[in-house]
Amino acid sequence: MEDRVKRIEKALDHFLPERKGSLSETVTDAMRYSLLNGGKRVRAVLTLAFCELCGGDEDMAMPFACAVEMVHAYSLIHDDLPCMDNDDMRRGKPSNHKFYGENYALLAGDGLLTKAFETALSSEAFRNVGMERAAYAAAVLARCAGEHGMVGGQCIDLATENRTVSLDELCEKDTGKTANLIMAACMMGCIAAGANETQINAAKEYALHIGLAFQIRDDILDVTGDAKELGKNIGVDAQNARCTYVSILGVEKAQALVDEHTEKALHALDAFDADSTFLHEFAEKLATRSK
Amino acid sequence: MEDRVKRIEKALDHFLPERKGSLSETVTDAMRYSLLNGGKRVRAVLTLAFCELCGGDEDMAMPFACAVEMVHAYSLIHDDLPCMDNDDMRRGKPSNHKFYGENYALLAGDGLLTKAFETALSSEAFRNVGMERAAYAAAVLARCAGEHGMVGGQCIDLATENRTVSLDELCEKDTGKTANLIMAACMMGCIAAGANETQINAAKEYALHIGLAFQIRDDILDVTGDAKELGKNIGVDAQNARCTYVSILGVEKAQALVDEHTEKALHALDAFDADSTFLHEFAEKLATRSK
Repeated sequence: MEDRVKRIEKALDHFLPERKGSLSETVTDAMRYSLLNGGKRVRAVLTLAFCELCGGDEDMAMPFACAVEMVHAYSLIHDDLPCMDNDDMRRGKPSNHKFYGENYALLAGDGLLTKAFETALSSEAFRNVGMERAAYAAAVLARCAGEHGMVGGQCIDLATENRTVSLDELCEKDTGKTANLIMAACMMGCIAAGANETQINAAKEYALHIGLAFQIRDDILDVTGDAKELGKNIGVDAQNARCTYVSILGVEKAQALVDEHTEKALHALDAFDADSTFLHEFAEKLATRSK
Repeated sequence: MEDRVKRIEKALDHFLPERKGSLSETVTDAMRYSLLNGGKRVRAVLTLAFCELCGGDEDMAMPFACAVEMVHAYSLIHDDLPCMDNDDMRRGKPSNHKFYGENYALLAGDGLLTKAFETALSSEAFRNVGMERAAYAAAVLARCAGEHGMVGGQCIDLATENRTVSLDELCEKDTGKTANLIMAACMMGCIAAGANETQINAAKEYALHIGLAFQIRDDILDVTGDAKELGKNIGVDAQNARCTYVSILGVEKAQALVDEHTEKALHALDAFDADSTFLHEFAEKLATRSK
């Protein structure tokens, strides 16, 4: 796992190299500041794991693993901006706009989102999986990241922030905000390996449920977690009077829901013949994570 | 030409339909507000024209024509934000953030950029030109829109805004900010039609020169133009003490440079055997446009 993350970091650095001496080097620096900031690489690891599960190798999956991390990094930069969550800190460091200013942070997010598609449609991607699979994978990424997916989830967040929301609405919001990008990660891994539609759909199902489990666990950690360990402020949801799984269900029932989604995710893995121990353990670990 | 623009508008509406009743309908509304705002559709028309010039038909080009308009619309929304140009008006209407608020405008821009790739990699695109051409075209769009292209140009704009810039630096900035997206428009038209590399490169050359001519003409119109006709405030460059082609060269020499770029653009059309009258006249009209 540690080696895998190291190879992902190396690939991210490869796909987004510095451009020292260029008149526009600052935006690349700002993009790299957030992209290479030591995230957990949950999404990229899932892309690699599903590709392997479907008989593909790491080279086939890597451009898509990096693309999904780029989309994730862009979403965090824009989400931290003053007009959104107005967060000053991210992973124990100043957030992008605190370090580079709002204008560069805006561009860095735009640049990373664009770079994600450049990477998924790069000559490496074309060479390793062919243009057809790359096109299919990039189309899935776009669908999951856009107004039907992650951007849509962000919008629901804004549209519901000053009112009580139902559990269903919360689920729809987090499916958009969180689960959709994890879906893209898992599905792209399968697509890179040339998996069939049944497998791609099973990966989507797994992703939906670990995505929701991840987000519910996030809400729990905002109450029970440790700011230092998490690398971000806690109590933010309560401070902003946000409706969360915890505010609706309480910590205990919220954790039961995490466990329920985890069970469903594990069930989805039955669609694969190959050994899915890693993804099995991954889902179980997410359900009890403390950071 | 008028019919062509009508068909582009219809296709844009088709690729980005309303989502009334959805919890996240507002972001789609905000995206449509800027996308369907009666722009000139210069870029989309170029995609269609180059596709036709290379023997393709309108259906083949349309997803890419729409994609490039989506990227253009996103760039205007983000460019108008308070942390960038802080423009209240766009095409005679309140800019996106003035109408929807900064948070929705940010998301609308993100959504449009994402939608551009969804559209270029849509089932329509795959059906009309095949997945390989769609992948190639979308890769070109990403490259031209990203930190080596449009986002890079925006960064140069920020990096040089409080100092004197040379003519070369200005050219590099505008190649990024303006010409790159026009390059994508023209190249994608060729790619959709299955053109060869010589033709794709000639389209890129044409686009570079009309792009620069377009931008230089824009600087001229900011001094000599009519606010009502243009649908935006004039004198903005001088007000912000921006270095422009006009501030460096004066209006007359700036127009001479427009004409020089137009000549080079026309020369690039020699690479095509088919009748390029439309693109010839298009370049000449841009050089003397008043809106």
